[in-house]
Amino acid sequence: MSFREKLEAARAANGSLLCVGLDPRPGPLPLDDTLAFNRAIIDATADLVCAYKPNSAFYEARGLDGWQALRDTVSAVPRHIPVILDAKRGDIANSAAAYAQTAFDVLGADAVTVSPYMGADSVLPFLERPDRAAFILCRTSNNGAADLQELDVDGEPLYLRVAQLAGDWGATHHNTGLVVGATDPAALRAVRARCPALPILLPGIGAQGGDLAAAVAAGVDVDGAGLLISASRSILYASDGLDFADAARAEALRLRAAINQAIDNALAARSS
Amino acid sequence: MSFREKLEAARAANGSLLCVGLDPRPGPLPLDDTLAFNRAIIDATADLVCAYKPNSAFYEARGLDGWQALRDTVSAVPRHIPVILDAKRGDIANSAAAYAQTAFDVLGADAVTVSPYMGADSVLPFLERPDRAAFILCRTSNNGAADLQELDVDGEPLYLRVAQLAGDWGATHHNTGLVVGATDPAALRAVRARCPALPILLPGIGAQGGDLAAAVAAGVDVDGAGLLISASRSILYASDGLDFADAARAEALRLRAAINQAIDNALAARSS
Repeated sequence: MSFREKLEAARAANGSLLCVGLDPRPGPLPLDDTLAFNRAIIDATADLVCAYKPNSAFYEARGLDGWQALRDTVSAVPRHIPVILDAKRGDIANSAAAYAQTAFDVLGADAVTVSPYMGADSVLPFLERPDRAAFILCRTSNNGAADLQELDVDGEPLYLRVAQLAGDWGATHHNTGLVVGATDPAALRAVRARCPALPILLPGIGAQGGDLAAAVAAGVDVDGAGLLISASRSILYASDGLDFADAARAEALRLRAAINQAIDNALAARSS
Repeated sequence: MSFREKLEAARAANGSLLCVGLDPRPGPLPLDDTLAFNRAIIDATADLVCAYKPNSAFYEARGLDGWQALRDTVSAVPRHIPVILDAKRGDIANSAAAYAQTAFDVLGADAVTVSPYMGADSVLPFLERPDRAAFILCRTSNNGAADLQELDVDGEPLYLRVAQLAGDWGATHHNTGLVVGATDPAALRAVRARCPALPILLPGIGAQGGDLAAAVAAGVDVDGAGLLISASRSILYASDGLDFADAARAEALRLRAAINQAIDNALAARSS
């Protein structure tokens, strides 16, 4: 099964474009143990998501224990749900191949986020297997994103050039996606117009202030899919108490419904 | 002591701009144990280098054992020699802070390589301490580098914009450097002209075919310094036998001398 087929199957089974970010925050957790916390979140939400996305940064900062927890967290996700390792790697050929080996074989992820700055030979080692994918950083949700991504290149912003390249790089196995923040719907609309068929990983809803309805309207594809709408803190820390898993489920249910309502509204507006 | 002072002290003490890349290759090593191999290389070359540069990719691909070996390798470097973690990280604010914590506190490195694609707030968390530094990817030595880095932005290539930004980002503590490949001396010359005082980490000599004399002439600063000339395989695997450490020392001696000769020639040419 290709990555795209696996993602589509999870989306269809759970009726969801929600991607839960498994980002343990520094300091005390509701449970002492990161892995136990993640397992409880996964158990509470695995029928409500299209993917999980652990951010490597927060695990690495905990040293060997964190690295072990990252590997075990990926293993804890049911096999039919894709795992996107949010690692934002980007290095040249043999180093990129080593990072791909780490993400796919050592950790067992289905996909990884990758920086485009070093070009084709830094991305292609992640794209050699049809059942694995890379999501290329395109127009990110942070304030500094404009420093490079908005620079004018032949009359269009750099991020649109990256969107084009990402599609080209993934042409063989159709296994590239893009990372585009929810905080700039106009940019998201431009990316979707350029790449009608690429999956877009969409951070920036919730804590970062992106407007869900505007983002869905700008980014959803013609089939009402094509987005992985990422939420982390709003779900993981919906409650600071021992009821955190129940609270996470309630928030995931609420967000899945809000996303699906936004999709219905967007498709209705397009057909009217 | 600031990072720049530490780097300059090591350069002056060892009379060297050589930076040895500690990149264990996949498969069998001359010694079974990566850490023991690295320690033997460090012992054989610590009086001949200005820095060491382990590439995180090759350690991560070995899982927990690799992560442990990376940490112990950094610890094995004598304290007066700077260690640059070649990790090419790049993520937004709190994730970048976690990566900085990993590089500087968990692993104990003095500097880390960072991708500029996500802009200022992905880089600044690495620059908060005067004794730690970030080397920003600018014009890399791989074939795909041109895909983004050579794109024309307001009449100049993107990599020159990045060089300018890197200098600006490091203005407070003077703790940014640049990564510029040795394979394009014209690009290196343009970067040096734009950033006269920034340290430049220079991969691409040796295995990648960069010409040492041309690169030194293009990149050395007015004091005959300002470069960290990286070599990995040509030193680590100078011999496949049990004499690998002696062979590494001999190759490091040869390369240090060749670099210093190239510097003398470059400064003489400039003053004539």
